[in-house]
Amino acid sequence: MEQGLTREIAAFVVRSRFDDIPERVLAHGVRAIFNGFGTALGGSRDEAIERLSGVLGAYSSGAAATVIGRSERLDMPTAAFLNAAAINVFDFDDTHAGTIIHPTAPVAPAALALAETRRLTGAELLHAFILGAEITCRLGNAVSPGHYNRGWHITATCGIFGAAVAASKLLKLSEEQIVWALGSAAAQSSGLVETLGFMAKSVGVSGAARNGLMSALMAEAGVEGPPCPIEGPRGFLRVTCDAPKPQLVLEGLGTHWEILRNMFKPYPCGVVLNPVIDACLAARSAPGFDAARIARITVRGNPLLKARADRPDVTRGREAQVSAQHAVAVSILRGSAGAAEFSDAAVRASDVRALRAKVAPVEADESIPLDAAELVLTFVDGGNAILREDHASGSPDNPMSDAALRAKFAALAQHGTPELDPAPLAERLWHVHDVGDVAELMDMARR
Amino acid sequence: MEQGLTREIAAFVVRSRFDDIPERVLAHGVRAIFNGFGTALGGSRDEAIERLSGVLGAYSSGAAATVIGRSERLDMPTAAFLNAAAINVFDFDDTHAGTIIHPTAPVAPAALALAETRRLTGAELLHAFILGAEITCRLGNAVSPGHYNRGWHITATCGIFGAAVAASKLLKLSEEQIVWALGSAAAQSSGLVETLGFMAKSVGVSGAARNGLMSALMAEAGVEGPPCPIEGPRGFLRVTCDAPKPQLVLEGLGTHWEILRNMFKPYPCGVVLNPVIDACLAARSAPGFDAARIARITVRGNPLLKARADRPDVTRGREAQVSAQHAVAVSILRGSAGAAEFSDAAVRASDVRALRAKVAPVEADESIPLDAAELVLTFVDGGNAILREDHASGSPDNPMSDAALRAKFAALAQHGTPELDPAPLAERLWHVHDVGDVAELMDMARR
Repeated sequence: MEQGLTREIAAFVVRSRFDDIPERVLAHGVRAIFNGFGTALGGSRDEAIERLSGVLGAYSSGAAATVIGRSERLDMPTAAFLNAAAINVFDFDDTHAGTIIHPTAPVAPAALALAETRRLTGAELLHAFILGAEITCRLGNAVSPGHYNRGWHITATCGIFGAAVAASKLLKLSEEQIVWALGSAAAQSSGLVETLGFMAKSVGVSGAARNGLMSALMAEAGVEGPPCPIEGPRGFLRVTCDAPKPQLVLEGLGTHWEILRNMFKPYPCGVVLNPVIDACLAARSAPGFDAARIARITVRGNPLLKARADRPDVTRGREAQVSAQHAVAVSILRGSAGAAEFSDAAVRASDVRALRAKVAPVEADESIPLDAAELVLTFVDGGNAILREDHASGSPDNPMSDAALRAKFAALAQHGTPELDPAPLAERLWHVHDVGDVAELMDMARR
Repeated sequence: MEQGLTREIAAFVVRSRFDDIPERVLAHGVRAIFNGFGTALGGSRDEAIERLSGVLGAYSSGAAATVIGRSERLDMPTAAFLNAAAINVFDFDDTHAGTIIHPTAPVAPAALALAETRRLTGAELLHAFILGAEITCRLGNAVSPGHYNRGWHITATCGIFGAAVAASKLLKLSEEQIVWALGSAAAQSSGLVETLGFMAKSVGVSGAARNGLMSALMAEAGVEGPPCPIEGPRGFLRVTCDAPKPQLVLEGLGTHWEILRNMFKPYPCGVVLNPVIDACLAARSAPGFDAARIARITVRGNPLLKARADRPDVTRGREAQVSAQHAVAVSILRGSAGAAEFSDAAVRASDVRALRAKVAPVEADESIPLDAAELVLTFVDGGNAILREDHASGSPDNPMSDAALRAKFAALAQHGTPELDPAPLAERLWHVHDVGDVAELMDMARR
């Protein structure tokens, strides 16, 4: 194991200046924060957020930090927790191509709560967020694919380190203190794939934001940690991964930016479903298409598609977000795949249930990349149609345009906070690096 | 994997009545809570607790719950966090023989905070604590020894489930809600062996208490979890252990009590060191013994002794608690092994440093059980002495007497809270099952 890896990370974070960040990395950071605010607005009144907010509000002290899209203000850790939940609740947030990490959900809320409370600038926020997201994705690279395959929800387990990094940068911690923060983060790193499809998923992801922030605050207060919490013999990499690649954490750090492989999603569901939905929407738009003629549908994709989303029996929207069978049926029938298509009501609709039953178990094919998928429609009259999506929309080779991101933001705001005019907030977010006081920005995100 | 394991646990917790608990299990529960209060008093002003209390107090709402041995009252989750840290900070708390779990640290604080806030009885507290500790130890059995050996701090990783169980019982949650609570606990289960010897260890253990409590409170508020968070294909057992034995969780549940294998420690350090210290104290009490004559000391013990405590270079008390070399040197020189012998000052003392340098690397011997150890003293004049401890004090075959436990309590109170008269508190704790209102009990534990 590479001795001193944790300390190298800490040194990088201390040393990094805003001017060191390349223009296109900054631009990506702006898009990530923008997209995260949109998904937070969209998720802000999901039932999971309502319930979590109800119970956690009782253990929050003061009103220092904004809960995006809601009226209450809470303390920093609780606001970070709820904002992470809201960003991620629909699985509509960003996704790092190499690891399937959703980096913004755990990292941005920790940075936002601190930047708001301490009245820091948008540039400081952006800088800290980029560093945190970068470390999150690099740790993810070092434990992929074994870590996720074993059952770790990598967004939460790696995200807590990124949240700690972002908060540490904003707190201007020393190298030693950042090593401690990463030690307390390691002690709290958790999150299981088994919880996906349930509200308990949010508990893992939100805990990463909250506890990463707390790790930095504890380090500031002198709570000491071990020297090698990440690379040590009983440290994060070895304990949570059978074959970690620690060299991937530091290789090219500061010159090669992993955050540039972060993608924005056009559909509110597991990213593995993107090429499947693209293919379904293409199939539906073919001249003369008639869903009533379908006898059977076969989906073929990367083995991860099968591992993650071969889920024929779903009863709720949350499960449907990771169900290829549901995604296929609903997108073919409705011709779109937004929040409404992954609601409880859509899952229960009788036409969707009937078509879902015609979707066969997912076929795994090692030769198909993650951003591609193949769809075979067999018709009752014997004919069939084969559709192939090679680069799913939202993938690195087919990214969402600025206009598409803005439209997604507006639609999410309309879904979650229809009483809020999202246009001024969107404009400020699009220029977040010019914001003088993050507290004023956050004020615009309140109902 | 045994489908329905989580639900079986939940059903057991719902069904259990106080009258179902055998007398000797109740008696053990009383001793565990008593011992835990003692170690909390002793640890209540350790520097780790001071620093954690300083930073966490700012994010605590209201004053519903007592922090043992301190003046401040905080909200339930924060009090649970700090009390778990104080109970465990010296490694002087209880230890389950099969797993080396310290069950009281994560479980009791969650139950105490709830019982105090809701003004429940001592019998309800005792009952909930016993159920939580029992489930903690049984989950530990199911993942031992691979889980700890891999690097998981088993007290924290399993303790969070016990904290959730104890809190669920006090909240009178339904079977379904307890399954949810265990799901949120699974999403937060964490803690690394790499942090032992550092304040970050407390972050893991304390997080288990706090987050187990929060899991139950979230379940009460309707935060749903997956049906099989413990036994599922990506659930706790499989993800954190290469060869789990799920059947050990349920086998004999309610008739065979694992909590009876829980031990109380005579020395404030890693339990693997108990037989080593016994042998050292015996060696020192031999007629004509002279430490100045020692040329070299060899310690032979169970492989876990070597894995856990072969640590020749220590600079602080916290590391010394898991150092065989330090434990040997200080107990031979001082003739005792209490809090003072594991302080920073004791580690730095020049005579201790000199003798520590004469202690060879630990020799591992599969044939030596965990509660035994062998000591070979080689003298400068060529002679040697061999001492063997077969059943360490505090082990199941040589348990601490009630009188010894009471003396330990008094000494810890004197160490941590000299201004508090511990006698009335000790009397109430010794009869905790007769306490009508846990809030009154907790009031006696405040400075």
